Amino acid sequence: MLVDEGLELLTEDDARGLLASGEVGRIGITIGALPAIFPVNYRIIDGAIVFRTAPGSKLSAAAEGAVVAFEVDDYQLADRTGWSVLAVGRSEVSHDRDVAFKALNALLEPLADGHRSALVRIEPTFISGRRIVH
Amino acid sequence: MLVDEGLELLTEDDARGLLASGEVGRIGITIGALPAIFPVNYRIIDGAIVFRTAPGSKLSAAAEGAVVAFEVDDYQLADRTGWSVLAVGRSEVSHDRDVAFKALNALLEPLADGHRSALVRIEPTFISGRRIVH
Repeated sequence: MLVDEGLELLTEDDARGLLASGEVGRIGITIGALPAIFPVNYRIIDGAIVFRTAPGSKLSAAAEGAVVAFEVDDYQLADRTGWSVLAVGRSEVSHDRDVAFKALNALLEPLADGHRSALVRIEPTFISGRRIVH
Repeated sequence: MLVDEGLELLTEDDARGLLASGEVGRIGITIGALPAIFPVNYRIIDGAIVFRTAPGSKLSAAAEGAVVAFEVDDYQLADRTGWSVLAVGRSEVSHDRDVAFKALNALLEPLADGHRSALVRIEPTFISGRRIVH
């Protein structure tokens, strides 16, 4: 177990497992040359992160063909425990019927109301994870 | 109240209030030309986001003099409610004694063990917030 400054560096398998266990993550994108982070609820479909957004939104435009960061974490402040996972990879607006079918079956529903019919898919190239250890 | 695709766009005052109420946020930075997002626990000191990291860490190097994104959110999946705030601004590793004194008084302690004596300070240039409304 490699520990760096109080953080255990997780194996890629463990990081992928935690990524698959999450429901709300944050995507880091660039809009108008400025960095932005937005929360999205997501599912893992065939190893890729998939979430819904509005077609023609700034988010869908920024995610199309870009290399993005995606982060998910869970912290319990009371006992100072928690973990985080970072995935980095190319994202695209998917028009694949198979992805749409699997997203439907995975009950991928946006938390907010609104017309979010665009599926953004991030294929992780790098996945890393850290867990607080005391 | 401006609502866009099921999300209420908050006033800057409301967004600043929620930012001040949070304890764990995520910073979006660039490391080696790739985007990254890391969670940090933070305090608001004189209107700026301040968190601790290890001197000489990748995070402190990436945050020095960079324009970064900082996000905080809170979601309740059970009733599909929640909010998020995004701040964008220039960050720096602060060597200001006044900032260090105020961080101490604000009980800014890292969640993880380790030698995190560097204070990173983000002066928000833009702050925006969204809240789910049904």
